[in-house]
Amino acid sequence: MAQALGGRLGRACYCLRSGEGESYRVGGQLVTILADKETTEGRFDLVRISGGKGNTFPLHRAVSHSAIYVLEGSLELQLNDEHFMLTQGDFASIPAGVVQGYEMKSHCTQFLLVTVGGHKSSLFRALGTAYSAPIHPAPCGESPTPEDVAKAGAPYVEVLGSYKPANQKGYGYYGKLPDRVIPYVLEAREGERRLLGDQLHTLLLHREAADNAMLCATAEGPKGLKVIDHYHEHITETFYCLRGRVSVWGDGVEYNLVPGDLVHVPTKGVHAYRLDTHDARFFSVITPGDFVNFFRTVGDPYKEYVYPPVPSPFHADRLFQYAEQLDIHIVGSAAGTRDEIMG
Amino acid sequence: MAQALGGRLGRACYCLRSGEGESYRVGGQLVTILADKETTEGRFDLVRISGGKGNTFPLHRAVSHSAIYVLEGSLELQLNDEHFMLTQGDFASIPAGVVQGYEMKSHCTQFLLVTVGGHKSSLFRALGTAYSAPIHPAPCGESPTPEDVAKAGAPYVEVLGSYKPANQKGYGYYGKLPDRVIPYVLEAREGERRLLGDQLHTLLLHREAADNAMLCATAEGPKGLKVIDHYHEHITETFYCLRGRVSVWGDGVEYNLVPGDLVHVPTKGVHAYRLDTHDARFFSVITPGDFVNFFRTVGDPYKEYVYPPVPSPFHADRLFQYAEQLDIHIVGSAAGTRDEIMG
Repeated sequence: MAQALGGRLGRACYCLRSGEGESYRVGGQLVTILADKETTEGRFDLVRISGGKGNTFPLHRAVSHSAIYVLEGSLELQLNDEHFMLTQGDFASIPAGVVQGYEMKSHCTQFLLVTVGGHKSSLFRALGTAYSAPIHPAPCGESPTPEDVAKAGAPYVEVLGSYKPANQKGYGYYGKLPDRVIPYVLEAREGERRLLGDQLHTLLLHREAADNAMLCATAEGPKGLKVIDHYHEHITETFYCLRGRVSVWGDGVEYNLVPGDLVHVPTKGVHAYRLDTHDARFFSVITPGDFVNFFRTVGDPYKEYVYPPVPSPFHADRLFQYAEQLDIHIVGSAAGTRDEIMG
Repeated sequence: MAQALGGRLGRACYCLRSGEGESYRVGGQLVTILADKETTEGRFDLVRISGGKGNTFPLHRAVSHSAIYVLEGSLELQLNDEHFMLTQGDFASIPAGVVQGYEMKSHCTQFLLVTVGGHKSSLFRALGTAYSAPIHPAPCGESPTPEDVAKAGAPYVEVLGSYKPANQKGYGYYGKLPDRVIPYVLEAREGERRLLGDQLHTLLLHREAADNAMLCATAEGPKGLKVIDHYHEHITETFYCLRGRVSVWGDGVEYNLVPGDLVHVPTKGVHAYRLDTHDARFFSVITPGDFVNFFRTVGDPYKEYVYPPVPSPFHADRLFQYAEQLDIHIVGSAAGTRDEIMG
């Protein structure tokens, strides 16, 4: 039933395994396009970038909001006049018009970059050369020049010049989630934290900070049960496995993800997921940003940074009461199954 | 054949999945014993420690060498009079007698601690209380007191007092691999790098730096072939998956590892492994340290930090010529198989 529904109404779900996907070499950096505007109904693109110590990207402004989630290594990021040092699990929100650029500070630095509207994937397609290895080239090579980025990024990107390293020992503070659209950097596990049963969901970019365009979040917890099959009329979801094993069902197909693997679920795509190992974790991109209402309605505010050893009850009653408003459409019946209602 | 040989000659191989294993709560920290002197023929123990921001461990000296490999978060580590900030992939070597202590600086900090002789697992058994959740408790709670550690660690540990945070913005330098037994810290991917065919092996603690007691290393590469079944008369090997999927065969059993999973192979245990995903990686502990000769004999020195897009040839000729001296005993025949000789 799930498969039929997904096939009838929606665009296709898809899965990319770590190391797979359309990849470009940009000087010493490797850019893999995990989602683009064609696959996300024009909403966003998601790329993974890896490179070596000293690789930079020029200072520029972009016409739309983007965000960075660091997977490995250390990334020195400039946002307007401030420099931040991001390491694994740190997150940056970069609204349209903010001056941005970076230098990789580790021998292997890898991060996710998500951009509203999806113009960054066309920039990298124009800037890079097709490349098939799963990691950036050795030696790590040159960085793209301001001229090349200006040409490849027009008219969505205005280039201001080369990146200037901070040459400082200490770096700017990490902020809290703001209540308006400003640039900010969150330390790993900071954000708006909501507990849903046994799972901790940490919102890194919420409606207020992204003008409703998108939501970025992580979810983690112990080995758990499959949430019930459901779909959304208006919402897209992308799951990127960070830790452990996570199963995602999309349009009736079961994908067993390990870190680096991704599943994208379009609007109307029937889906579900399950954490298959202790302390599994995934990163998600959800559009539009008002899906934050789901976490705020069904989840409880949570002040700790790891999920509790004894789960809180899952508030299925709240879900059923508000499902229509939350754009959650449950497929089949929860009765008589061991499924959790929603994760 | 492999199974029979392993069963006949050796101690048992075993596998622990992420979140499994004998675990202790030590104040706000969770300590999981992955290997102890009983399972490693008295050679070492390996524990995984996780905790939250502000959790500390008192200053102390120990009677034997230990080493730290950071899995997540930020760990401020004192070694004698210097402070270092370690993040994911960074490594510290702590010889016997060195003053050591730490403070966790991230909301979730997790690292591996390996100790020659295996006295740290008995320390944690005496210090902690049995705990079954896969991650440290929330809230992150108190740290162990110097008095408690002194009592639990005697006679192997001499406690000097509470840990004093560095309160500095910049931290000490990262070193190169030394040629003698001194404390040092390596930045992620630094170390003695050897290329073996398509795989990059990075030695983090070698014979010279650990008085021959043990070798710590990482291995990474593209999706590859299974190395040939082999065993060692005198060498133990422990595989801890860091990234992607890694299969390890131990005594004829196939273990498909994801990050956080471990397989220990005792002396005389027939084993093999394979990298199953692009850019898979594992951390290994090998005793004694003279197994470094294998990497130096069969591998080529390599100055880059990621494996090359085009593999170098694997020097099987060197392996066959020196197998006896290297304590490598091949089981079965390499002829007519697609197996690589050795990874």
